[in-house]
Amino acid sequence: MRVLGIDPGLRNMGWGVIDAEGSRLTHVANGIIHSVPGALAERLHQLHRELTDILATYQPDTAAVEQTFVNKDAVGTLKLGQARGIALLVPAQAGLSVGEYAPNAVKKTVVGVGHAAKEQVQHMVKLQLPGVKLAGADAADALAIAICHAFHAQTGNRQKALRKAGA
Amino acid sequence: MRVLGIDPGLRNMGWGVIDAEGSRLTHVANGIIHSVPGALAERLHQLHRELTDILATYQPDTAAVEQTFVNKDAVGTLKLGQARGIALLVPAQAGLSVGEYAPNAVKKTVVGVGHAAKEQVQHMVKLQLPGVKLAGADAADALAIAICHAFHAQTGNRQKALRKAGA
Repeated sequence: MRVLGIDPGLRNMGWGVIDAEGSRLTHVANGIIHSVPGALAERLHQLHRELTDILATYQPDTAAVEQTFVNKDAVGTLKLGQARGIALLVPAQAGLSVGEYAPNAVKKTVVGVGHAAKEQVQHMVKLQLPGVKLAGADAADALAIAICHAFHAQTGNRQKALRKAGA
Repeated sequence: MRVLGIDPGLRNMGWGVIDAEGSRLTHVANGIIHSVPGALAERLHQLHRELTDILATYQPDTAAVEQTFVNKDAVGTLKLGQARGIALLVPAQAGLSVGEYAPNAVKKTVVGVGHAAKEQVQHMVKLQLPGVKLAGADAADALAIAICHAFHAQTGNRQKALRKAGA
């Protein structure tokens, strides 16, 4: 199963792709889309184009987007919402289901505790994806979201399979 | 000049199309896109599809989106931001410039005062677009945004033309 994780943001949108076979995870690619300052509609259009290209290149089976932490000011929340709308739209346009995970749920899955520091998340991402070169903190977060989604999607599938088998 | 106005919202997205020739305004169409409750990514995908259809049907020359009033709770602001991202994206994908106007600027242009009641806006939209049948309050707001954009775009063009003519 190939998983795309997205850490949404208007200026910096992190993305990461991994392959998950059972508990074995492999890094495929990661990066950050930087939208060029200018008219908001054009910035969203650029994010849409580049994210669409990433889906076309890596052909993920499923996607997940971080649930935004809305502790910022209202203007910041609105900006983030606009970018997040694009992050949710693009995988849906490709026919993928899109998981959503709160930052604490991602940390809990990847690091083991919900209030881990950013450096700890990056450390665990590197441990779980040997040889990965991170494009930056937003790309590391996107890979952590992908790892979290792979874990939950596979756990869900296993539970469904067990139920089907009457276990 | 054909103008599309959009009043963004996740549950109800108002839209309105007018033709503007000098000070003469003509109503073309208006409506409300209702997204079906369910997965957020799928709702945004639906808004994107229906808004794309509206652009293909009415072929506007320019578009405008209301600047969101961020006086709601953070969760509401985030939801609105996600829908607004789609409202800005679709005209940009069609190669249109997208104007943005604060609610008070729209009211000031359409009614003459920045703090007009919703009923007053609807009344003035009906006066300025004789024979219009409004699909609802969100569609009336969208038409008001289109009227505001037509006024400002034409004023801007006139000023540019005057500058070009050396006036």
